[in-house]
Order: sequence, then C-alpha cells, then structure tokens
Amino acid sequence: MHQVMKQILPSSAGNRLAALSGPSFAREVALGQPTNLSIAAEETETAHSVQIQLSSRTFRLYTTEDVIGVEIGGAIKNVLAIAAGAVDGLGLGHNTKAALITRGIAEMTRLALAMGGHPRTLAGLSGIGDLVLTCTGHLSRNRKIGEAIGKGEDPRTVLKHMIAEGVETSKSVHALAIKHKVDMPICTEVYQSLHEGKPIQAALESLLSRELKDEVY
Amino acid sequence: MHQVMKQILPSSAGNRLAALSGPSFAREVALGQPTNLSIAAEETETAHSVQIQLSSRTFRLYTTEDVIGVEIGGAIKNVLAIAAGAVDGLGLGHNTKAALITRGIAEMTRLALAMGGHPRTLAGLSGIGDLVLTCTGHLSRNRKIGEAIGKGEDPRTVLKHMIAEGVETSKSVHALAIKHKVDMPICTEVYQSLHEGKPIQAALESLLSRELKDEVY
Repeated sequence: MHQVMKQILPSSAGNRLAALSGPSFAREVALGQPTNLSIAAEETETAHSVQIQLSSRTFRLYTTEDVIGVEIGGAIKNVLAIAAGAVDGLGLGHNTKAALITRGIAEMTRLALAMGGHPRTLAGLSGIGDLVLTCTGHLSRNRKIGEAIGKGEDPRTVLKHMIAEGVETSKSVHALAIKHKVDMPICTEVYQSLHEGKPIQAALESLLSRELKDEVY
Repeated sequence: MHQVMKQILPSSAGNRLAALSGPSFAREVALGQPTNLSIAAEETETAHSVQIQLSSRTFRLYTTEDVIGVEIGGAIKNVLAIAAGAVDGLGLGHNTKAALITRGIAEMTRLALAMGGHPRTLAGLSGIGDLVLTCTGHLSRNRKIGEAIGKGEDPRTVLKHMIAEGVETSKSVHALAIKHKVDMPICTEVYQSLHEGKPIQAALESLLSRELKDEVY
C-alpha cells in the first residue's frame, strides 16, 4: 500500500508515510484493553514520532523500519484466516489450526523476504500477532467465510452475501507468489477454493499429501 | 532434557536421541485430525529415520537439527500459557492475548539463541505452533492455573489443588534467564506471581509500564 501511496502523493510526503498494523480488534482498543502494534516507516524518525504521539498506557506501539514486512503480514493474514475458518468448518481441531498458523507464518515470511522485507517482522506483532488474533478470535469476517465453505457451502453462494478483504487479497497473493517464485501452498489452496472451484476437501488433501521435509522457510 | 539424557545414558546412545515436540493435544491425534510436529536430532539421519517411521498421512513430522530450540520452545510455552490464562482470568481480550503470544515468542527466541539454538526453530511448530495451541486451546492445565490466579485466587491455594508443568518450569526459566543474561519480562512476572507473592495486577502493571522501543528480539 505504501508503494501505491508514493505513486499518488507528492514526493515530499514519501518519508512521512507510516504503516500501523497488529492484533487490534477495534472494540477491545476502545475498551482500553492492552493492545500492542507495529508502527513501520522507512524513516526511523517518522516511526518514533508516531509512536510517541499515539501510544498510551494500554495502546503500545513498537517501531520498525520494515514497511514491506508489516504490510505483507497485515494483508496475508486475511487469506490465512479464511483457511483457519475452513479448518473450523471441516470440524478439525486445535492441532490442525496451530499447524496452519505456523506454516502460514512460514509462507508470509518467504514472500516478505522475496519482496525485500525482514523475516523478524513476520515473527512480530504485525505477523504472528495479527495472524493469531484473526485465526482464533471469533470476530473475523474472513474466518467466517472460510467456516461456511468448510461446512460445505458453495463459495459462489457464500461470496454473494458475505464479503471480506481476504477474498480479493487471495488473488493478489497468488499473483505475487508466482511473480516472486515463492511456494505458498496454503494461500494457493485458498485461492483455488474461492476462485477456481476446487472443492475444500480436495484442497485439504493437497496439503496433507505434500512431501515431508525439513522444517525451514 | 537431551543434556540430562546424555549424562545418564551410555555415550553410544547420544547420537540416537531425538526430541519430538509441537502442537499436539493427544485426543486430537487419536482422532486422526491433521497434526504437524518438529522432530529434532543432532544427527540428521536420526531425525529422518524417526520422521519416516512415525509419520502418517495426518501425523506429519518436520525435521530439524536444533534440539535446543525445540526443547526450549516446548518448555517455556508452559510458563507463557500460565500468563495467557491470567489474561483470560483478568477479563482482558484477544488483543492482549495475541500480544502476549508474540512477545512470548520473542522471549523464547532470545533464550534459545543465548543457549545455542536457532531463532527459526521458535518460529516453527515447536515454538509458535505449540505456544498458540497451549494459549488458545482450552485443554491446557497451565492455562487453567493462570486463569484461576487472574480471577483473584491466591497462587498458594491454587497450587495446592492444581498442578502443571509450567509452575516448576518457571523456576528453571528464571534461573536460565539470569544465567544467560536474557531479558524475559513475561516469564519473570509469572515466576514472581507464582513463587514470590507478587499480586497479578502488579505483574500486569509492570509489563504495561515498560519503556517503549523498537520491535526486535
């Protein structure tokens, strides 16, 4: 998103751009429940300035220079939340969800790395933190869409009356994965289930039949 | 644990030791629900051999050489699960829990690194994966102890009738943090709440009043 903004805004605005992202259901922020986020800007001073201005005792911002990493995490978590919802809808358990989140982080990290981000960012609030929130909290619309599909509803029907960011993002992620030659099996299955008519059971089977390997990114 | 086993077993057994760890509630494994784990051994061949022998379609092992990282993740997640339970008991929300998990991973990672482990391991199944399972699944006894304390019960009373691994592990982690000069604020607060009579509200306040900084390990 910051690349789009740089194209649109006057060049002088470029180094005043910052991205705020992390696990933050708005309702809980409003209730004053402790919330931590990442604040990313290419210029460290910009990030520190926003950190000082927006932080309170229960709303705490951590600075980073990795704008790409923060944005990738914030976007892809919506696609993975659809997969997490499908896990719920299929009646699978906590083990499967935890594995999905972990392997999902690995996918995010590979793409961020290929695009110039830093792996550590995805291990932080705007990566793991936001993904855990979206996949396990019950307030996520992305998760609900996945749940309906997991229960056997036709994605075309579901998408007629429900909408969430991850549906469109799955197309962008699929395109980016191809462009940067990054292996993103979970995101690919979400894309194929939503947009290419692949049955959800077949998507799960594809993930389970992958070759066993070392646990690396 | 593998250090202890090496001391006790004949030296020839050393390179046949492997550590299996990851998000795996036993009940769900028994039900055949998809479960992924890390299998760690200093000798790659050992890990691959166990991988081949134990894996099935729904029980999938990923190999790694980082035995220390896998063991640290499996142990510390129990301490952090007590903190996650306290978050629930205090009536705090998903944002706080997600932040706790994320900052908890950072603590695990710092200690593992200081002890010779690899940061990537903690971003994997035996780190993030197991931590997410233990902190968000409702089957964890560690989480239940934290919840009781968060609700205002006296830790001394709670520990008389409930027992979980994290209670003792919090002592070992506290000692290791001091020995390796690693900053582990969440584990320290759990230790002080359980064993030094620090009130849970004061522990929370300590975490919220820490200086704001960059989001790094």
